[in-house]
Amino acid sequence: MAYPLLERIQAPGDVKLLAENDLPQLCEEIRQFLIQSVTSTGGHLSSNLGVVELTVALHRTLDLPQDKLLFDVGHQCYTHKLLTGRRNGFAALRQKEGISGFPNPKESDCDTFVAGHGSAALSTAIGIARAKKIKQEPGKVVVIVGDGAFTGGMVYEGMNNVSKLNNLIVILNDNKMSISKNVGQMANYLTKLRTDPKYFHAKAQMETMLDSIPVIGDTLVRALQGGKQLVRRGIYHSTMFEEMGFQYIGPVDGHDVIMLEQMLNNLREQFAPIFLHVVTQKGKGLKQAEENPGEFHAVSSIDLNHLTDPELSPKDSFSTIFGSTLAELGKEEPRLCAITAAMKYGTGLNFFKHAHPERFFDVGMAEEHAVSFSAGLASQGLLPVVAIYSTFFQRAYDQIIHDVNLMKLNVLFAVDRAGLVPGDGETHQGIYDTAFFSQIGIPVYAPANYEELKYWLRYLVMEARGPRAIRYARGEQKPALEALPCTGNAYDKIESREGARIALVSYGAQTEEIIAACDLLQQKQLATDCFKLVRLYPLPEEICEALRSYDMVLFAEDSIRTGSIGEQLCFALHQAGWKGDYLLHAVDNTHLLHANVPQLRRDQGLDAAALAADVLARVKEKQI
Amino acid sequence: MAYPLLERIQAPGDVKLLAENDLPQLCEEIRQFLIQSVTSTGGHLSSNLGVVELTVALHRTLDLPQDKLLFDVGHQCYTHKLLTGRRNGFAALRQKEGISGFPNPKESDCDTFVAGHGSAALSTAIGIARAKKIKQEPGKVVVIVGDGAFTGGMVYEGMNNVSKLNNLIVILNDNKMSISKNVGQMANYLTKLRTDPKYFHAKAQMETMLDSIPVIGDTLVRALQGGKQLVRRGIYHSTMFEEMGFQYIGPVDGHDVIMLEQMLNNLREQFAPIFLHVVTQKGKGLKQAEENPGEFHAVSSIDLNHLTDPELSPKDSFSTIFGSTLAELGKEEPRLCAITAAMKYGTGLNFFKHAHPERFFDVGMAEEHAVSFSAGLASQGLLPVVAIYSTFFQRAYDQIIHDVNLMKLNVLFAVDRAGLVPGDGETHQGIYDTAFFSQIGIPVYAPANYEELKYWLRYLVMEARGPRAIRYARGEQKPALEALPCTGNAYDKIESREGARIALVSYGAQTEEIIAACDLLQQKQLATDCFKLVRLYPLPEEICEALRSYDMVLFAEDSIRTGSIGEQLCFALHQAGWKGDYLLHAVDNTHLLHANVPQLRRDQGLDAAALAADVLARVKEKQI
Repeated sequence: MAYPLLERIQAPGDVKLLAENDLPQLCEEIRQFLIQSVTSTGGHLSSNLGVVELTVALHRTLDLPQDKLLFDVGHQCYTHKLLTGRRNGFAALRQKEGISGFPNPKESDCDTFVAGHGSAALSTAIGIARAKKIKQEPGKVVVIVGDGAFTGGMVYEGMNNVSKLNNLIVILNDNKMSISKNVGQMANYLTKLRTDPKYFHAKAQMETMLDSIPVIGDTLVRALQGGKQLVRRGIYHSTMFEEMGFQYIGPVDGHDVIMLEQMLNNLREQFAPIFLHVVTQKGKGLKQAEENPGEFHAVSSIDLNHLTDPELSPKDSFSTIFGSTLAELGKEEPRLCAITAAMKYGTGLNFFKHAHPERFFDVGMAEEHAVSFSAGLASQGLLPVVAIYSTFFQRAYDQIIHDVNLMKLNVLFAVDRAGLVPGDGETHQGIYDTAFFSQIGIPVYAPANYEELKYWLRYLVMEARGPRAIRYARGEQKPALEALPCTGNAYDKIESREGARIALVSYGAQTEEIIAACDLLQQKQLATDCFKLVRLYPLPEEICEALRSYDMVLFAEDSIRTGSIGEQLCFALHQAGWKGDYLLHAVDNTHLLHANVPQLRRDQGLDAAALAADVLARVKEKQI
Repeated sequence: MAYPLLERIQAPGDVKLLAENDLPQLCEEIRQFLIQSVTSTGGHLSSNLGVVELTVALHRTLDLPQDKLLFDVGHQCYTHKLLTGRRNGFAALRQKEGISGFPNPKESDCDTFVAGHGSAALSTAIGIARAKKIKQEPGKVVVIVGDGAFTGGMVYEGMNNVSKLNNLIVILNDNKMSISKNVGQMANYLTKLRTDPKYFHAKAQMETMLDSIPVIGDTLVRALQGGKQLVRRGIYHSTMFEEMGFQYIGPVDGHDVIMLEQMLNNLREQFAPIFLHVVTQKGKGLKQAEENPGEFHAVSSIDLNHLTDPELSPKDSFSTIFGSTLAELGKEEPRLCAITAAMKYGTGLNFFKHAHPERFFDVGMAEEHAVSFSAGLASQGLLPVVAIYSTFFQRAYDQIIHDVNLMKLNVLFAVDRAGLVPGDGETHQGIYDTAFFSQIGIPVYAPANYEELKYWLRYLVMEARGPRAIRYARGEQKPALEALPCTGNAYDKIESREGARIALVSYGAQTEEIIAACDLLQQKQLATDCFKLVRLYPLPEEICEALRSYDMVLFAEDSIRTGSIGEQLCFALHQAGWKGDYLLHAVDNTHLLHANVPQLRRDQGLDAAALAADVLARVKEKQI
């Protein structure tokens, strides 16, 4: 496939050298490139197909990096990366040696900010715009925010603080959905703005009419005259965005690149923060994605000729097992409710929704509300399960403490994508949940395979009460862990070697690396036993007793080091009077990459080879 | 002072037995009682004086506890407590043996929910209302939210999820300020609604006029007719609250108790979630508080006859020392900016605002925005200091991780009210910050007196870079710590006794208890040394070396136990090969009370007597 125009764009600014009437073809080339490239490597597809023209128009009118361009969430930045000289990186998109799937200032000075979590970019953009004012620097700050992010509260905190920032342009990328279908009143409101051209076309007509009313004695006209100011306000301050202090423009067609460029050029002289409402189609240009943008939100590498193959239906994963098991439990337990924050499919809760629609709630990208809403349900005797990715649970830290834990309410936190997460990079790692749930005093369970997930989910739903959490990895169970029997114990000894004086301990998906390390060490004639925790907090009472006979304990976990379960176990062992050697392998939050899980483990010293090497080195040190 | 009507109210529901025309006098009695009682005990005053009539009207019309009444933040619940049989508890308001200053279900089944953090109650109310629907229970759910809380994003997440909840009534308590003057676009918007009666009175007039327009051929009228639908919408959907799906009613006078009762009665049959906009005056009935409601937001016990005494200007405290020092540093460092989330006075940043208004930002009750906004400023080379109470920093946990720490931006977190906090109770304790800042990998400093605060603040502003935090207690420095010299070391040995084999270690305000314990133990002929940390994370490299010669280490901290600095130090000592005894005294988050600091320390085993007893017991155990 040839991309004659795209090939002329090698560096930031090159897109400005094209003739205006070449732009539609450029957009078409970009779209074809993205379809070919992303279906081959995997990555975010639908959202990127939606913002091709918008991004091209922005790059034609902005001067990066003096002007600043921010993406909320950030996974829709692919066209931006193509226009800033990173086309070659797409062959290894989201892979360790390739480019990130999100903006990252380490990659380009045209990437203003790290982005991966929703609803936050407006706040950082306001900070940048304010800094420009303080420093008396020229330039615009443009932030693209999807309509989905408007279900998150931070956007409103930002909008409340835009006053007089006439170097700020907020672009609402309104594609009628965030990741799956958008929810709530804000979605209804945007639909109203979008679908009622009369509401806007009538403006000019009304104004002409009002201006033409003479001030005369007639009753009708006097009544109207009295209301003139009111009507004006009714019309001109008719959007909530204008109430928040913006100059509102829109809605405009997000796929008319020439019009968009002209409009953005016209906005260079502005006297207020601007709110530009752009309507785009998610998945634009790929018929199957246009029809099912949710399914094509993030794709693995796929064969474009077999897109309708039934095998596209989701394979088993921790998420689908969670969702289908919860749907089953919902039949037995009428008080069970399920809550998601805009991740109905990602969390597997689509199964629960299908079975129990009246007890299913998708609250939008609003993790804080999701948790406090669950607390409200629980306070009335219901049994809510709130399923959120580990990285997004961080948003609800205070609500977990204040609204759930203080009253010890019966809320079950289902922590999806816990531990190391492939592809997405540093913004999406699930490395803090064990530390913060345990710190708050909330029991945490970590099943390592599907059988354990089913067993412990049933236990936590049907028997355990109070705040409680269950965490599981992204994707499928590991072959090395699949066959581990589910004993129902809070921990298990899963490898036992003759004469072992060393214990390797882990939990969840990371357990496969201690099993492999055990084998590596056996090859070196060093016998080790392996233990796997299911209940991470509080630590099983008997674990110290089980470990105290060993001379050395190595603990490996795919969670942050400080405040980790490993530190807690060391403390418990020390309190129990144990004087052995303790080796801790955990995650360092400053060196995380977009990479696959084996690579991440290697980078973090969590792979079997690193674990075995550490044990051997310590043994050698002791012998000297 | 006699309260004849108030005395007739001994239990929930008693207020309904009064005649309607007695209500104004009852409100006057309640107001006088609150002024007398709260100025004697200390507590929240202005906000409670503002909602007397509203609360009386609600209690007249609701059937508690079947109906549910929630308070956002909760410190305005005093009238509610008076009307539910807790008048006697006011003599010891916010004291250990008395009633809490916040709603608490442990106190009364009329208190629906724990509340202390702002903007969250709407979400819990929605959960409760939804639970009633699922359980097919009758009854209303009423939540009172101050206008200040509308600067927090959670309220919008909640509003986005109210659809069809016709058992929900949201009351906006609009007092034109939250704790200090309210900020931002939302404040402007509410002012517009409030101050423009024409905007509302014109409704009826306009509707009559529009209905009277005949459908005839005249051009003017046709144009108007075309716009009729539009004008209607312009008027009726004129508030953002209606756009969010509410039936909006207001603004109404929040001090007309009879009108309020009638209006609330009329709302019993509702077909949509209701948004009732009530305008109140903070501090109503106490002239000085009406004029300076910010100053009277929370009062210590005061002499009403000397309210205008200049001594009311704030005494020195960690907050004022912080604020005035930062204002000084702002003269030397033009890049320094200061950010508060609605706590200009509480944090002492009023000094900075006065000196450097162009670099001061009050973003409202929006801690998440405050942090991400600061990240934006820092990304452009400025040096933001964001000062927030420890308990409210919990709200910004994800923003600290995602927007500040991933890019290692130069944001200084000033953690006010860190550690044990008197009076407010479990919702306001500052017990998580050391654990979560260290977990994220952010250096944390804990000065113990004013000199140290000044020294380390200067160092952190002028020299240190990257994300970094400084934490300090509520109130004044402790006499026992005032004289400790500021050495500029990351830790100090502050007591050294001949032949000591035991070390007592602490940081911040809690240090006074280890000094006292050291004296107690000396009386028992047991010599101990004392160490005080300033840098809590990363632990000073030399601290393990300094401690390894002791047989026993006791660590005491006013922070949560799991993931604490004390656990981290034990881990570090174990890694350093130390085999001694380690005693950890830290906070248990399940037993926190509204009490003063000495009482809280006693309850948590953090007082000198408990520390000394633990050391003695362990010594004895060893000797056997």
